[in-house]
Amino acid sequence: MSGTDRSKEFPTGPGPVVVLVEPQLGENIGMAARAMANFGLREMRLVAPRDGWPNEKAAAASSGALAIVEEAKVYPTLSEALADMTLAFATTARERGQMKRVASPAQAMRESAGEIAAGGRAALLFGRERSGLDNDEISVCDAIMTFPVNPAFASLNIAQAVLLTGYEWFRTSQGEALPFDGEIRSPLAPRAMTLSFFEFLETALDDADFFPPARRPPMVRNLRDIFLRRELTEQDVRTLRGVMRAIGRRRKEEGDFGGDEEG
Amino acid sequence: MSGTDRSKEFPTGPGPVVVLVEPQLGENIGMAARAMANFGLREMRLVAPRDGWPNEKAAAASSGALAIVEEAKVYPTLSEALADMTLAFATTARERGQMKRVASPAQAMRESAGEIAAGGRAALLFGRERSGLDNDEISVCDAIMTFPVNPAFASLNIAQAVLLTGYEWFRTSQGEALPFDGEIRSPLAPRAMTLSFFEFLETALDDADFFPPARRPPMVRNLRDIFLRRELTEQDVRTLRGVMRAIGRRRKEEGDFGGDEEG
Repeated sequence: MSGTDRSKEFPTGPGPVVVLVEPQLGENIGMAARAMANFGLREMRLVAPRDGWPNEKAAAASSGALAIVEEAKVYPTLSEALADMTLAFATTARERGQMKRVASPAQAMRESAGEIAAGGRAALLFGRERSGLDNDEISVCDAIMTFPVNPAFASLNIAQAVLLTGYEWFRTSQGEALPFDGEIRSPLAPRAMTLSFFEFLETALDDADFFPPARRPPMVRNLRDIFLRRELTEQDVRTLRGVMRAIGRRRKEEGDFGGDEEG
Repeated sequence: MSGTDRSKEFPTGPGPVVVLVEPQLGENIGMAARAMANFGLREMRLVAPRDGWPNEKAAAASSGALAIVEEAKVYPTLSEALADMTLAFATTARERGQMKRVASPAQAMRESAGEIAAGGRAALLFGRERSGLDNDEISVCDAIMTFPVNPAFASLNIAQAVLLTGYEWFRTSQGEALPFDGEIRSPLAPRAMTLSFFEFLETALDDADFFPPARRPPMVRNLRDIFLRRELTEQDVRTLRGVMRAIGRRRKEEGDFGGDEEG
């Protein structure tokens, strides 16, 4: 899944601060930095990282997101890490009986965006690998953030929790505009039926010398796309007409490719 | 972030099938299985896994999600893996110039849920670690699924892509009902000011012998929560009245804790 385009701008604008409280493994700090980079989060704070700082393993695991690791600030206590924050969420997987309100990542990111737009600063706290955040750490936050997750398998590691939170931040701050729009489709034929048709069609077209040899692979893909998309374009229809003419001629061996199948 | 409750039911009901096409590393298969388990996805299919099957590393990396790995079905070709599917999404990070519509994970999961509710079956394809899906593999799918992600750092590994997709599946199929609701909050005082107030208050209460020694930690947390939540409960008010009485008495050294501070 590598689609990185180094020419693209890193999204600007302030975002929430990711605070890792007493992280144990450098690898996890680096992976959290990568997850932040995926979604345009830039500021990481570390409270008393177990193995000190800087940490070579964090740098190694951050490949491509090294700037986030290098610019991470280290604080001896959580209070100091949060001193200039005006909103803080404590990430936990379990309810802690603290009578604190609980937000989903989507709710927490909408609230963080509102806070930041109003001139405040938002922090997202993630706890130790083994034991998470303790009750005193949760008690200095405004709310708990937790994930909608299978209760029978709720375990997420730090990098996964940061990834899901970053994903929601990106959607909240950047929207999720994509190159094409989709609509709900009507039920399709089972795939085996469609693939069998493709095979029949492509064999018939090979017999009819429809494909210029050098262009066969992209033409086959374009043909399949015609049948897998819902709406035929004018070009699709022209291509289909060329196909049908070729099939009609196949016993005559005229070898006429015409000019309109792919134009 | 361990909050797994083994007593909870695994979410039932059919979901989309995760198809890994020529996965290279067993660890990634196992991590993908864990991400599936986090969000109630159960059926994994493998097309020609590079290192054969079964794979000990996949089993080891799946800890807690072993059933998904053990029940994964292996197919020699993608066509066979998709034979009984009626809807298929190809996950890619880059546009492939195929004139195929592109869906976000949220759109793809809504569409998959509709397809499944109508009696169909949906597949989500994820490609090789190094090179993703090739154009011919994408060409047998109905649409492309891609992630709203920082274009300057778009690289996601297989387990991360499965995690984000599973997260959207769980939200689509299970909603994201959480124990408490949040609303947008008004701006808060900077954290340093609030923490400094806590310190002042707790010192004053120590001087006033407010805390029964054995109960100090939970009482301190409850006190902080009162000021970090928006609305005072009746119990909060009773506790605050006890606090104020204690402060008023502190020079008299009466040592009366009353019975209503925590009741």
